[in-house]
Amino acid sequence: MTEEVALAFDDADLLPAIAQDADSGDVLMLAYVSPEAVKQTVETGLAHYYSRSRDELWKKGGTSGHVQHVENVRVDCDGDTFLYLVEQEGGACHTGYESCFYRQIEELNGDETAEIEVVAEKVYDPDEVYE
Amino acid sequence: MTEEVALAFDDADLLPAIAQDADSGDVLMLAYVSPEAVKQTVETGLAHYYSRSRDELWKKGGTSGHVQHVENVRVDCDGDTFLYLVEQEGGACHTGYESCFYRQIEELNGDETAEIEVVAEKVYDPDEVYE
Repeated sequence: MTEEVALAFDDADLLPAIAQDADSGDVLMLAYVSPEAVKQTVETGLAHYYSRSRDELWKKGGTSGHVQHVENVRVDCDGDTFLYLVEQEGGACHTGYESCFYRQIEELNGDETAEIEVVAEKVYDPDEVYE
Repeated sequence: MTEEVALAFDDADLLPAIAQDADSGDVLMLAYVSPEAVKQTVETGLAHYYSRSRDELWKKGGTSGHVQHVENVRVDCDGDTFLYLVEQEGGACHTGYESCFYRQIEELNGDETAEIEVVAEKVYDPDEVYE
């Protein structure tokens, strides 16, 4: 049984989407999506996002080949965040790590900086992927 | 070995924070944090967020008792999203589900609504918790 829910896109017509590895459960990244990005994701089965800095729709892995096969898309209780459950090819992070969340905060230095420790290993060499 | 990273709070001095169950790996919720919310989280070991609608700092579970014990805080490659790894008491969602992401999108109906299916079971009765 399905029911209809509202999608609460913000004033810029964007919402955050979390990508989670469907097998390992690792949270891979957060990016923003437009209605068109969600539509492309559902239609193609490949994760699409909307770049706020470049102001354009993008397919994850379009340059690197590190696409995300989307098994399903969830929406939260407020209809204002998406969760993509994905099979990640290569690594999600442009730095070479599987997940963008490879740094753990050890201590906060005021409001704008933190001391971190790297808690993961790189899974690919970004210099070989982004030429 | 630690190193210093910049935290890229936006113009409203906020950033999204994802809460993930440290044991099950389930993504529980996404909320926003101010520098003070992150500071309170690190200092107390309990998840704090900043409510955009109420315009105030809040401690998760302050009303329901469903607090989140934060094992560690990660920050992403751009320094603009946090990941709280937590031990969740009760359920994270105010609707009674463990996770706010209890609905799977089956079909998009244009840009503003979607057909969903509920893919989880409630873990508590919200009527008994929020009186």
